[in-house]
Amino acid sequence: MDGFSFSTDVRVRFAETDAQGIAHHASFVVWLEVARIAYLETFAGGYEAIRERGIEALTTEVHLRYLRAAGFDDVLTIWTRCTDLRGARFRYEYAIERGGELVADGYTAHAAVDRETYRPTRVPAWLADAIARAEGRA
Amino acid sequence: MDGFSFSTDVRVRFAETDAQGIAHHASFVVWLEVARIAYLETFAGGYEAIRERGIEALTTEVHLRYLRAAGFDDVLTIWTRCTDLRGARFRYEYAIERGGELVADGYTAHAAVDRETYRPTRVPAWLADAIARAEGRA
Amino acid sequence: MDGFSFSTDVRVRFAETDAQGIAHHASFVVWLEVARIAYLETFAGGYEAIRERGIEALTTEVHLRYLRAAGFDDVLTIWTRCTDLRGARFRYEYAIERGGELVADGYTAHAAVDRETYRPTRVPAWLADAIARAEGRA
Amino acid sequence: MDGFSFSTDVRVRFAETDAQGIAHHASFVVWLEVARIAYLETFAGGYEAIRERGIEALTTEVHLRYLRAAGFDDVLTIWTRCTDLRGARFRYEYAIERGGELVADGYTAHAAVDRETYRPTRVPAWLADAIARAEGRA
Repeated sequence: MDGFSFSTDVRVRFAETDAQGIAHHASFVVWLEVARIAYLETFAGGYEAIRERGIEALTTEVHLRYLRAAGFDDVLTIWTRCTDLRGARFRYEYAIERGGELVADGYTAHAAVDRETYRPTRVPAWLADAIARAEGRA
Repeated sequence: MDGFSFSTDVRVRFAETDAQGIAHHASFVVWLEVARIAYLETFAGGYEAIRERGIEALTTEVHLRYLRAAGFDDVLTIWTRCTDLRGARFRYEYAIERGGELVADGYTAHAAVDRETYRPTRVPAWLADAIARAEGRA
Repeated sequence: MDGFSFSTDVRVRFAETDAQGIAHHASFVVWLEVARIAYLETFAGGYEAIRERGIEALTTEVHLRYLRAAGFDDVLTIWTRCTDLRGARFRYEYAIERGGELVADGYTAHAAVDRETYRPTRVPAWLADAIARAEGRA
Repeated sequence: MDGFSFSTDVRVRFAETDAQGIAHHASFVVWLEVARIAYLETFAGGYEAIRERGIEALTTEVHLRYLRAAGFDDVLTIWTRCTDLRGARFRYEYAIERGGELVADGYTAHAAVDRETYRPTRVPAWLADAIARAEGRA
């Protein structure tokens, strides 16, 4: 997908469907997190590595547009990119695709905080660099 | 809360927390739905009544801003209003409060569809009227 | 319900249903936890009070029999009792009822552990006494 | 693992953890379903194929023993076998393993029902045969 260089796949679980017969809209929020964690694993040594260095990433905003229904057992490709890293803050943008069709898109915003104090803390240089490299800006 | 006349309470379940020790951000999306259903029960005879009349309401957009963490067993008040009802489309706006503090806010957008064809269908007059009365515009 | 003196109600959320049009069977596991927490709040000062005293309760076993389907918006009464408290271990038994009909029943087993070491630790006397009183055995 | 010939892997999602810092015990119930669906895909053309032939499989019982905690991002191998197929009823047995250690085990019981009437219906011969072949009994 244009403008994205990373994707991860999820398969819709039966438990993620609802009585409308489709994937419940809250399931997408979980999948975005799955995609972020896959992204960090690929480019930055994993989310656990970040937590072990004393940083926690809070989610401060979620936005999703649902364009098509997703059904049980559908394989969805979640295109993911990290943008707007500045100080303690950063964003992810997503395009969720199934067989070439856009199913949903959205973004999430995050703040890095110190794991002990939960105070905002600058994203460390090693992580900012890893993300910049991933996004082809370094 | 200013501008809202309806609220419903949820209590954060242990299953809704995550390893950060706080309510997982996807849980809020479920609570907004709980609030919408309580709203429809109070003002429009319940969501099941709407479904039984052949209408399904799809969620087409979710937006949430997380301002403070919510913890296990916290009681959250979800202020809810229905806005911008036009044709097949309508929105809900939310303010999630705990003890006078704003914890999160957001909106969701929806489309009424025919339950058989899943084609957009005008929100029926009886439902539009019920919502207008609830929001003091009728 | 015979043999139970405590119950708590849950209402089936739309997010808890699945594409079979009924409450997903994993939702019941969450409701049992909601019932345990309500039980502890009523009889033992709440689960947070227990955690604050340095004890965590792990779930070591879950058993559920599903006798009837539960639907969206159904109000379920979860009859709950605490049994077999011995050393670090205790059990809960449940009967889930809707309008006089048994929908499901089951039990869960638990171990009290030290919150720091996660080693099994005797259920403290004050909590064992509170439970014995609740169950009419003290 | 002894006595099992099929397994599927899941990776613990952050949303599946709770404030004890470990995977919530209800998450395991969802993973068992993921394993059943992978099993049916491998041996019987997928769960959707079964539903399309007019059969729904209800879960009538769940039993899980939790022996070790599972943490965020752990990869768990779910060994799965189908047993005791008789008439409309069958069971699955599971062993959940991580790096050679048993994390949990359990079983689920199921009933095949007609998709329209929700009445119990004999598991069709083609499906019973597929399962018997999978389990090396045909």
